[in-house]
Amino acid sequence: MKLSFNKTELVDATNIVLKAVSSKTTMPILTCIFIEAENDEIKMTGNDLELAIETKVKGVIAEEGKIAVDAKLFSDIIRKLPEGEITITENREMINISGGKSNFDIQGRGADEFTKLPSIKTDEYICVSEFTLKEVVRQTIFSIAANDNNKMMSGELFEINGDNLKVVSLDGHRISIRNVKLRETYNPKKVIIPGKTLLEISRIIPGNADSDVYIFFSDNYVIFEYGDTVVLSRLIEGEYFKVDKMISTDYEVKITVNKREFLDSIERSLLLVRESDRKPIVLGIEEGKMDVSMTTVIGSLKEEIEIAKEGKDIKIGFNPRFLSDAMKAIDDEEINIYMVNAKSPCFIRDAEDSYIYLILPINFIA
Amino acid sequence: MKLSFNKTELVDATNIVLKAVSSKTTMPILTCIFIEAENDEIKMTGNDLELAIETKVKGVIAEEGKIAVDAKLFSDIIRKLPEGEITITENREMINISGGKSNFDIQGRGADEFTKLPSIKTDEYICVSEFTLKEVVRQTIFSIAANDNNKMMSGELFEINGDNLKVVSLDGHRISIRNVKLRETYNPKKVIIPGKTLLEISRIIPGNADSDVYIFFSDNYVIFEYGDTVVLSRLIEGEYFKVDKMISTDYEVKITVNKREFLDSIERSLLLVRESDRKPIVLGIEEGKMDVSMTTVIGSLKEEIEIAKEGKDIKIGFNPRFLSDAMKAIDDEEINIYMVNAKSPCFIRDAEDSYIYLILPINFIA
Repeated sequence: MKLSFNKTELVDATNIVLKAVSSKTTMPILTCIFIEAENDEIKMTGNDLELAIETKVKGVIAEEGKIAVDAKLFSDIIRKLPEGEITITENREMINISGGKSNFDIQGRGADEFTKLPSIKTDEYICVSEFTLKEVVRQTIFSIAANDNNKMMSGELFEINGDNLKVVSLDGHRISIRNVKLRETYNPKKVIIPGKTLLEISRIIPGNADSDVYIFFSDNYVIFEYGDTVVLSRLIEGEYFKVDKMISTDYEVKITVNKREFLDSIERSLLLVRESDRKPIVLGIEEGKMDVSMTTVIGSLKEEIEIAKEGKDIKIGFNPRFLSDAMKAIDDEEINIYMVNAKSPCFIRDAEDSYIYLILPINFIA
Repeated sequence: MKLSFNKTELVDATNIVLKAVSSKTTMPILTCIFIEAENDEIKMTGNDLELAIETKVKGVIAEEGKIAVDAKLFSDIIRKLPEGEITITENREMINISGGKSNFDIQGRGADEFTKLPSIKTDEYICVSEFTLKEVVRQTIFSIAANDNNKMMSGELFEINGDNLKVVSLDGHRISIRNVKLRETYNPKKVIIPGKTLLEISRIIPGNADSDVYIFFSDNYVIFEYGDTVVLSRLIEGEYFKVDKMISTDYEVKITVNKREFLDSIERSLLLVRESDRKPIVLGIEEGKMDVSMTTVIGSLKEEIEIAKEGKDIKIGFNPRFLSDAMKAIDDEEINIYMVNAKSPCFIRDAEDSYIYLILPINFIA
């Protein structure tokens, strides 16, 4: 194999596939990038067996071939070579990487060891902008469950109905929902995509509003295609929680509050909470104002925020981290919070239900 | 005690004294900042018993007093309060911190527990610009010894002779020397300043070329004064190594090389070296060119750099990290390296001896 590249293009492509390379593993091949040059096309692939990323990279093929190479070492070397042309030559699994007057020789691994992407045929897909995909992930990913005890909770539901995409995550204490209008109408579809996949894809897609991502679905896989890159991941099997039954539009109190002010206040309250604590932030909602208070072994905080209120007065406690996560996900300046009583979930939602955040309250000593 | 501050000024002053607060300690008082308001002056102090920093902060004293407060909590709270005025009230060691509509109550610690700065009288001092002090520390601090096995090697010699300040550090494998012309002439003085002190001072001084730092010396202490801030540290006792005897101006080979090119090459060679390795970078110096090579279990690198040479050809090996540290410290575009043979130290120095870096070579298999 003998290939040459422009350094910048090789570095960019490597950075993309690196996201699917294991750093912690006992199988050395999973720490590798696979380089394959044939039929006038150079492809690079990373595959940690949960997530696989393949991207095309521009370059000149002087001799076809394929080889696996330690991803971190390869990435470090090409980044440190001088700007300009980089040549990669492989002979009996020894790889020479050269640029300028610099020549590295490192050991590669046989192409046979590397698990390539399964080839999957499917007609089912949707198309969204990179920007939208990145945003819906950011706005929901925080409420997947932190551990794998319940596999279903470690993923997100993607539910397509006509021209609506509904994305849902939940962890047993809260639910996050985003509804997105699609540009076309599709057949109904429900899949559960692993949270890790969504996190990685949202890190690697550039996020342009005018570039599209095609999301293909097969029985067991989801495939994201954008630009020259393909990201493939297994789906989580099973039927997702019936979220619609948990969502209600009834309320007895509705408040409207400036998001920035409320978020600042919540973040101050968090200064008094140690990692392991489950101390509530207590909201005392009255006409025109909300008292915010937090008391822990470290100290106490009391403050007051102006609000607009409909309905009765209420005193209610929440996990401040859950409130903070939801606030950070919302882009609106003013938000509406709907409550029933101190024991029923509150809902933070906009008029169009483009987002719905359900949070269970926690007990507090009045 | 009742004080009020502008938030920005309080945050800036806190950030300065934080540098002398212990984060790892079993003595809670060492994690505190001391606030003292009397005689129309508000002072904040951090003191981890090795290093103490005291700074004045502008504010209004409604009631004098003094209190110690957990540094991290205090710093987090004031940073998260709204912009504008912050009021601190202390009553029976309970501290109220308020800003906007936000009110924190936290527990303080008695002023008696806190170790204040010793008052030291001395006439011996020098004056340098903040910029110069920051630079000489950056250019020498990397070659103090990494551990405390030899106390002397964990500090730097500051030697004043007339209008010359010589700063020296060494770790048994290399020596770094910076000579700085002072604006005035002073009495001869030799002190050993702990490396930790120098690191912290170089982090907190702004580094302006037209602001001065006064460095005072007593028998046991060094005191840095700049702006409204005083930094005090114990000196290391004893007599420093006789460095002059180790420095020679004889050489058999002199090369001139572009620093950036050489440093890039060294950094590439480091990609093949694992933490614990002691593999040499081997320099093969000939007429007009230098071959750079590195061979480890990970792979091998060979490259070639253009040089100007005086004297014989030579092949010599070095710890690449030591070369890299020296290169990074030097601002010149072209550097001169002087060598005798493969077993004698090399010297990297400029014509004026404003810097001298001595590095011992290491053996390699030819």
